[in-house]
Parts: sequence; C-alpha cells; structure tokens
Amino acid sequence: MSKVYTGASTSIDGYVSGPDFSGFDKLFAWYEAGDVAFTMPTGAMTVHLTPASAAHYGGLLQATGALVVGRRLYDFTNGWNGQHPMGVHTVVLTHRPLEDNEHFTFINGSIDEAVAVARKHAGDKHVGLNSGEIARQALDAGLVDEIFLDLVPVILGGGTPFFAPGKGYELEGPVSVIESSYVTHLRYKVKHEDSKTD
Amino acid sequence: MSKVYTGASTSIDGYVSGPDFSGFDKLFAWYEAGDVAFTMPTGAMTVHLTPASAAHYGGLLQATGALVVGRRLYDFTNGWNGQHPMGVHTVVLTHRPLEDNEHFTFINGSIDEAVAVARKHAGDKHVGLNSGEIARQALDAGLVDEIFLDLVPVILGGGTPFFAPGKGYELEGPVSVIESSYVTHLRYKVKHEDSKTD
Repeated sequence: MSKVYTGASTSIDGYVSGPDFSGFDKLFAWYEAGDVAFTMPTGAMTVHLTPASAAHYGGLLQATGALVVGRRLYDFTNGWNGQHPMGVHTVVLTHRPLEDNEHFTFINGSIDEAVAVARKHAGDKHVGLNSGEIARQALDAGLVDEIFLDLVPVILGGGTPFFAPGKGYELEGPVSVIESSYVTHLRYKVKHEDSKTD
Repeated sequence: MSKVYTGASTSIDGYVSGPDFSGFDKLFAWYEAGDVAFTMPTGAMTVHLTPASAAHYGGLLQATGALVVGRRLYDFTNGWNGQHPMGVHTVVLTHRPLEDNEHFTFINGSIDEAVAVARKHAGDKHVGLNSGEIARQALDAGLVDEIFLDLVPVILGGGTPFFAPGKGYELEGPVSVIESSYVTHLRYKVKHEDSKTD
C-alpha cells in the first residue's frame, strides 16, 4: 500500500510559519539556494536548488500521487490559482466545502475520509499531508508513516508549529539525512503500536 | 574570546522536556545507545554512547569551562547533589539566590551579569547555557554564538521549548551534522547584526 507522509520546511524551533504568516522568505530560502533550475510539474514556477536538494525534492515529487491540505492553506494560497504546483490531486479538509473539480476534492468529514479519498487518487504513489492541524489529526488517527523534516537554520520565535500540540509519538531514524544549503533534509518513520505485526 | 553556546536534546517538535517534565527517557535515549562507556568528569555517572556521539560529546565537554542555568533546573536536579556532572563552575540565574560555594554562583540580576561571571570561570574555554528562558534571554541580549541541537526522533506534543517564544533570529549552518543512534547532532552559528565587522 502507498505510504502517507507529512513534511514541511521547519525552523529549528519547530514552526512552519512565523507569527502572522511571516518568515517564508527564511523557510524557503533553500528553494533559491542553488543552480539547478527546477520547474514544478504544473509549470507554475521554477526554483533553483542545490544538486542535493534537487535530487531529494525531485524524488519526493515523483513519489507523491495526491495531497491532503487544510482549508486555511487553500485560502491563503487562493487555491494555488487552480491547481497545486505539484500537479497532483489535492483533497481539502474543510467544514465549508466548495464544489469539487478535476484538481480538488473538498471533504467535510474526518481525516480518515480525506486520506482514503487521496489514496484513491494516488494509486501506487504516496499521499502527502499538510503540516499543522492536518498532521496532528493524521498522527492521532495512526495514518502517518513517514515525516520529512526540512530543517531550516532560523529561529522564528512563534507561529504555526509543524505538529500542533497533543499526544507524543516515537519515531525511527532519521533514516536519511541530506545536507544542503539553507536546509537539512531529514526523514523519519513513525513507530506504530502494531508495527511489530506488520 | 571564548564562545557562548546553548545546546539541548530536543524533540523534532522543539521541546527539551515533555509536559510536566516528562519525556526524558526518550530525549536522553542516545546516552545509552552505544558501547562507549563515557564517565562524566565528576564521576557522577557513566553513560554508554555510540562512537560518533562520544567523540562529539567528549569534545564539547572538553571545550566547556562554565555553565549558566536557571533556578528551575537547579531545583529539579536538587543542585545536581552538589556539583554539575560536567565538573565546571555553574552560574544559577535566580531571583532567590542561595549562598555561593566553590561549584555554584547565584546571580540575582541580568543574563549579561550571569554570562560575565561564567566567562571569568571559563577562562579560554566556552560558556554553555541552559535552553528555554535562559537561551531566549541570552539570544535577545546578543550573547549566543552557537547552538548545539541534539535532535531526537520523538514528537513530545508539548512541554518546555528549546527557545521560549519571542524574536526571530537567522542562523548559519548547520556547520556540522553528526549522525548517531537516537540523535542527530547539529551545530549552528547565530548571525549577529554586527558580524560583518567582526
């Protein structure tokens, strides 16, 4: 079965955005830290990565078949002007659903339902989850297999945490560490209580 | 001049202790993750580190000449039963000072005063600072040169953050990444506004 992961560019104090949605220039500095021109699948934008980040990010994009995001991010990006730049179907978990279209499905329900719909769209590929509340809900539902932490050399001092406060979880790893410029790419596995019988 | 650093074993969600001072078994699992018997300078305890962690931690201990900690940690450890296990003079920043002795100085004053006293004890060696409120005060006073982040594969979901919320800071690095078992040792430099003229 395909994996479910969550990942985000994160400050060393654990935030994926600073106070009042600030700090993105720092969190995403690694998108322009190299010479490898990297065009997003939709063509919506081209970033310039180091070779290490390009290999890592390119691999993750290729492996990802669908996304689950929250309504706040959807609104903040204005629905990515029609399609998520990763070019995959995106499930939006929301209490105020809009009309579905070829690129977005709106789910007014549980994280389990949202992930199930995303899995159908992903096929054999992975499902990527938003950080913050979505990641927390998915962790608590036992749905998250891996965590991709793009650790950025900045202290934001406040804002939106990668993981909303709640229960604790043990992880395995990092199973990979990729050093780059303005970011360290770390990958962890979530230990599931039933993992011994998997 | 000697450097001032702060460092701590930290969960990937940024906490140096879990809710109600929990989680230390997870945060310090790397102290018993290897075969290298490592006795603290005072002989107070022996831990068992991986070769990578032993080299890293041993080097840090050798370079450290004094510490600054908060009163809460001092009380929580019962004053380390007389001496900090690192075997160096320890300055306790507190509004309720106790009587100074050969191993501890109590400062009822500013972080600047506490660090100045610690520097005298450290000589050419470095001053290590507690995480949490002490790290935050020292950052805001422009006193922190480096950050040692021992990143542990656990989500604690709440507790005491490495950096108390406040102003943001840009960092350089990581200037070193050491992979080990149950921990990744990352070292960052703090960018000071006057660093261009240093």
